[in-house]
Amino acid sequence: MKLTVVLPVITDAFTEEVRREVAAWAAPGTEIDVRRIARGTASIESEYDEALAAPGILDAVREAERDGADAVFVSCFGDPGVHAAREIVDIPVVGGFEPAVLTSLALGERTGVITVLPNVLPMLHGLVRRYGLTERVGPIRVVDIPVLDLDPGERLLDGLAEQARAAVAAREADVVVLGCTGMLGVAAALQERLAKDGAYVPVVDPTGAAVMWLESQVRLGVRASRTTYMPPRAKDRVG
Amino acid sequence: MKLTVVLPVITDAFTEEVRREVAAWAAPGTEIDVRRIARGTASIESEYDEALAAPGILDAVREAERDGADAVFVSCFGDPGVHAAREIVDIPVVGGFEPAVLTSLALGERTGVITVLPNVLPMLHGLVRRYGLTERVGPIRVVDIPVLDLDPGERLLDGLAEQARAAVAAREADVVVLGCTGMLGVAAALQERLAKDGAYVPVVDPTGAAVMWLESQVRLGVRASRTTYMPPRAKDRVG
Amino acid sequence: MKLTVVLPVITDAFTEEVRREVAAWAAPGTEIDVRRIARGTASIESEYDEALAAPGILDAVREAERDGADAVFVSCFGDPGVHAAREIVDIPVVGGFEPAVLTSLALGERTGVITVLPNVLPMLHGLVRRYGLTERVGPIRVVDIPVLDLDPGERLLDGLAEQARAAVAAREADVVVLGCTGMLGVAAALQERLAKDGAYVPVVDPTGAAVMWLESQVRLGVRASRTTYMPPRAKDRVG
Amino acid sequence: MKLTVVLPVITDAFTEEVRREVAAWAAPGTEIDVRRIARGTASIESEYDEALAAPGILDAVREAERDGADAVFVSCFGDPGVHAAREIVDIPVVGGFEPAVLTSLALGERTGVITVLPNVLPMLHGLVRRYGLTERVGPIRVVDIPVLDLDPGERLLDGLAEQARAAVAAREADVVVLGCTGMLGVAAALQERLAKDGAYVPVVDPTGAAVMWLESQVRLGVRASRTTYMPPRAKDRVG
Amino acid sequence: MKLTVVLPVITDAFTEEVRREVAAWAAPGTEIDVRRIARGTASIESEYDEALAAPGILDAVREAERDGADAVFVSCFGDPGVHAAREIVDIPVVGGFEPAVLTSLALGERTGVITVLPNVLPMLHGLVRRYGLTERVGPIRVVDIPVLDLDPGERLLDGLAEQARAAVAAREADVVVLGCTGMLGVAAALQERLAKDGAYVPVVDPTGAAVMWLESQVRLGVRASRTTYMPPRAKDRVG
Amino acid sequence: MKLTVVLPVITDAFTEEVRREVAAWAAPGTEIDVRRIARGTASIESEYDEALAAPGILDAVREAERDGADAVFVSCFGDPGVHAAREIVDIPVVGGFEPAVLTSLALGERTGVITVLPNVLPMLHGLVRRYGLTERVGPIRVVDIPVLDLDPGERLLDGLAEQARAAVAAREADVVVLGCTGMLGVAAALQERLAKDGAYVPVVDPTGAAVMWLESQVRLGVRASRTTYMPPRAKDRVG
Repeated sequence: MKLTVVLPVITDAFTEEVRREVAAWAAPGTEIDVRRIARGTASIESEYDEALAAPGILDAVREAERDGADAVFVSCFGDPGVHAAREIVDIPVVGGFEPAVLTSLALGERTGVITVLPNVLPMLHGLVRRYGLTERVGPIRVVDIPVLDLDPGERLLDGLAEQARAAVAAREADVVVLGCTGMLGVAAALQERLAKDGAYVPVVDPTGAAVMWLESQVRLGVRASRTTYMPPRAKDRVG
Repeated sequence: MKLTVVLPVITDAFTEEVRREVAAWAAPGTEIDVRRIARGTASIESEYDEALAAPGILDAVREAERDGADAVFVSCFGDPGVHAAREIVDIPVVGGFEPAVLTSLALGERTGVITVLPNVLPMLHGLVRRYGLTERVGPIRVVDIPVLDLDPGERLLDGLAEQARAAVAAREADVVVLGCTGMLGVAAALQERLAKDGAYVPVVDPTGAAVMWLESQVRLGVRASRTTYMPPRAKDRVG
Repeated sequence: MKLTVVLPVITDAFTEEVRREVAAWAAPGTEIDVRRIARGTASIESEYDEALAAPGILDAVREAERDGADAVFVSCFGDPGVHAAREIVDIPVVGGFEPAVLTSLALGERTGVITVLPNVLPMLHGLVRRYGLTERVGPIRVVDIPVLDLDPGERLLDGLAEQARAAVAAREADVVVLGCTGMLGVAAALQERLAKDGAYVPVVDPTGAAVMWLESQVRLGVRASRTTYMPPRAKDRVG
Repeated sequence: MKLTVVLPVITDAFTEEVRREVAAWAAPGTEIDVRRIARGTASIESEYDEALAAPGILDAVREAERDGADAVFVSCFGDPGVHAAREIVDIPVVGGFEPAVLTSLALGERTGVITVLPNVLPMLHGLVRRYGLTERVGPIRVVDIPVLDLDPGERLLDGLAEQARAAVAAREADVVVLGCTGMLGVAAALQERLAKDGAYVPVVDPTGAAVMWLESQVRLGVRASRTTYMPPRAKDRVG
Repeated sequence: MKLTVVLPVITDAFTEEVRREVAAWAAPGTEIDVRRIARGTASIESEYDEALAAPGILDAVREAERDGADAVFVSCFGDPGVHAAREIVDIPVVGGFEPAVLTSLALGERTGVITVLPNVLPMLHGLVRRYGLTERVGPIRVVDIPVLDLDPGERLLDGLAEQARAAVAAREADVVVLGCTGMLGVAAALQERLAKDGAYVPVVDPTGAAVMWLESQVRLGVRASRTTYMPPRAKDRVG
Repeated sequence: MKLTVVLPVITDAFTEEVRREVAAWAAPGTEIDVRRIARGTASIESEYDEALAAPGILDAVREAERDGADAVFVSCFGDPGVHAAREIVDIPVVGGFEPAVLTSLALGERTGVITVLPNVLPMLHGLVRRYGLTERVGPIRVVDIPVLDLDPGERLLDGLAEQARAAVAAREADVVVLGCTGMLGVAAALQERLAKDGAYVPVVDPTGAAVMWLESQVRLGVRASRTTYMPPRAKDRVG
């Protein structure tokens, strides 16, 4: 199958790293295509950034379908443009939140998400309510590092470990979900660190979860329902 | 006070009618300014339409603030771009959903929203969950008339009355909220029709509710919280 | 319009102060009438006090309607007698809770109410559940000052600021609602104090919110639904 | 133990019948005292009636405690004055709703309440939300018979059976709770009728449930918590 | 009436103590029969233990009915096998959770359960959600003492008092429920200790609550609904 | 990877068919092992059947781990023994409910489950509440065919199509989940039938969903959290 990753940012700074990560998670037969958007922002850290990026994401998703993609991963934890995209294409589309959080729900009683900045907390708490998951997802925490400063080094890992330990100790979390798709390549190391503290606590990488979610949808022969995601009616539109 | 109405569509077809309606609801001292957006769609009837309209809405809200507006009404029931707009300006901003539905909650036990097309139901049900109001807002109903075909005539009124009566009979609704800001000038007539059937059931016009909501916020001296709506960080953005 | 304020207490200690405050919040055309009740208690700080005050409140609301009031504000945060009053008159009636808390919901993600004494917490938490708002209203806090000792001085302001800061720091509140209509004239000062700490957090004054809520209901042409608030059947009643 | 039944009405029309019913449900050692209230209404069928009856109920509960009662049953399904009463006495007090509905929750998945008139539906739905039981209690139904016209004859039984069958068929109810303490002496007959239709469905009589609930509280050595029901502070009160 | 207590463990270590406790709670006319199970575990402290004990519990419940029991108490707080048992017998069956927690709901706003070990927390939180009681039951706490080390001495009482005080101070609990039926004979002493700290907080003993719950069901003439608990269909079964 | 399927029944009637189905869904590298249980029932259609089957399921899961399985699918929609199994092994274990329902949540707004018999409805509704998913999963429906009479023929397909159409028409479902793992090989045909009616509605096969869920967990390097699923303490156990 052909999987297109839409990087919802206007720079190529992450393209190669994302391609490597996605390729590492993908099944042998999966062909990877990574494309950034033409209009939008350098990173997504607010509802404002999401709104500016959405039209570019929709362009990219439509192009991906035209170019033969079997599924599209919009690589951002806030699921920007994802529901709109499902209205306009006939292939599976996911962002980072749904696959990671839904995967986490079968791994433990409560899910603790750790994201980048306080700016995105209301947006993510809004998604928890929109998706009807308030009984299972605890308060969301932050490492307080902007997206563009994330890199898979010690600072990020230390911040994640500190928040994860605090969440587990407060019984807010039995499973940890990395709440930014820019937190690449740290899930396994974080899981190892937490296990050293005592009980094993799984850590879900949103990129890995999304890749497998889409592969599974394609193999299951399912895509988004047309009673939820109806095709938009024809009308004048100026992009 | 100066109230700016942002019409989130790319045509001027509604501008005059909206200006008249808003003026009719506004308090004596309120100055009205209506402006449409430059980029977007002819009407908003899907998450796709919302996503395309959002950047233009944000431009218009920012310009409104620069031009001295005291408050902004984004005239669409789905609250498109509203949360993002609160991040970037220091004046009150509302769409159609919040003022109308919150107003309705003090008028009766259950609120029944009647909107245009099935296409927007998941979006509106998503708002009900996002706003944490599922215990009070019943299933949303439709008249099955596109936005561009709405006019304050008998067809609309008949459709609304039919749905409202069915909702009341099924105990889904004690209060009716018109679920599209394009349903102009019919609230009073619908309320009268329903009262003829038996019990008095209030009908909330989203334009009227929004105008008064904003006037009240200005008089109360409040605007959106900066712990929920943090100002976006500086970064590269391409609109 | 003519707005009647029912002070649900048996003394005239607050009458003038309330009249001044209400007049300050009201629109130019609004005529204010303040009346206390004949039977009840000196202040409302328990379910017991509410129960004793309710018959007097109902008498006063009915008299207000007979005397030509267009709307009635029962000036107590616990909404005592309000739902019963809606059954017996044909004009809008609100207490303090609904207008203030519903107003707050469009200002931020979570609402933090600060009230007088622990005695009223179960009553107010009961209202939060009755109104179906548990997903949006955080734990309620107290300044631990009886109603009769409230005055717009430093002790009250210090207590409110301390509780508000703690609520914001604990992410329990993005908006503050003053949880007693006796906390007169301190909302703006509290808002200013909080803003000095960092992020802007709106503070909602329940008297101001109620006045504007009623003015809006009158201008919108709506009052309480008769499918929720049915007129009581005729029968023997001994007051 | 000595059990006082407070009949929250101003006539003696039901006193003897209630005494007989309560005696029939009570344990051998339980001494029964039935007293009506001095101020209030002829029956309780609205929030207005509840508000008028509450001060009289509180008087009666306090007198019952002074006269040596070990527990008090306020014989009305809407729990009028019950929470206020718990603040002022040191003995168990219940109304009809809590014992009957909580008893029903261990008998089946969903509880269907059948009450007298549509007038009380919002009040009872409000209790369901206040008590946090919306996931277990289905929509409440009515036989549409005023309290004063209830008698344990065929009209009542037919109405109850019709509503109960409809609720069971719609999967709204696995257990039936009689939603008025005036529906005396019909629970067993209704249960028998339903069982003839097919599956056994238990019917909970609110008087019986309340009597046993209070006997159990006395034997368990518990009464209402003083962190929820704090004693009202001393102050001027005019009844 | 004849009440059978099923001790869901494979030793006789508790049999006599349980018999004494149950007899102390039971009404004069109640005849007590205590029987342990043949297959299962020495104590129940995990979902694994529950699963191993369930077939033995079902055998014992069926035998109890055959031997003329009027009601069965499965003496374990996690309600193991209880729902399955209701499918196969025609008499009331309860475990420890339902009677104690439902009893607590009419005693205060929030219920705090204190159980033995962290191992059973997810199981008990799962029951809270399954029973639809998340709005009323606070986070569950542990004394961190295994079931087999429980005895009504100071260590247990100290642990319970410490957790109960912390829960009350954090406003998590207005009522305390002992979350293990092995915590025998300490409820009254704990209640006394807490009252010395300040406000009266009731403590519910799950054995006492269960005994009275079953006596009440028998006297009310109700048992589990057959629309929830349908009789299992005939088929091959190997125990 | 090596995937063990535990068929929680005591006959070999389904073994070959399940092996074929699982193999068809599995990824190329996945090795399949199907084993039935020694003690239990011929099919699972009640809480009673679940309870009898659980010890045998736990034996089989432990043996699977000892025999080198990387993951275990307990092939029953009610997740029998699954949570207990996670306590005793260090490999991923799922039943039918979690993978299928969680997969469905990213495909549409509301999920409609269709299962075999009314007997299992309370059990499945109990799982919906236990898993905290009541806001997303509609009322569950039945085809009224016992498990042992299921076969991938017209009767099953007709029953499923009838229920699915009714659920979609009533807006209860945007996605259909087959609510019994014995409904083998019909998902694609049902999806096709529904699409002919109008809008595309995805149908999730629980066996396919479970196979891919486990493959994904293994590839993501995660298994059940040890803070939710703590290893049972050593003690006497008699199976």
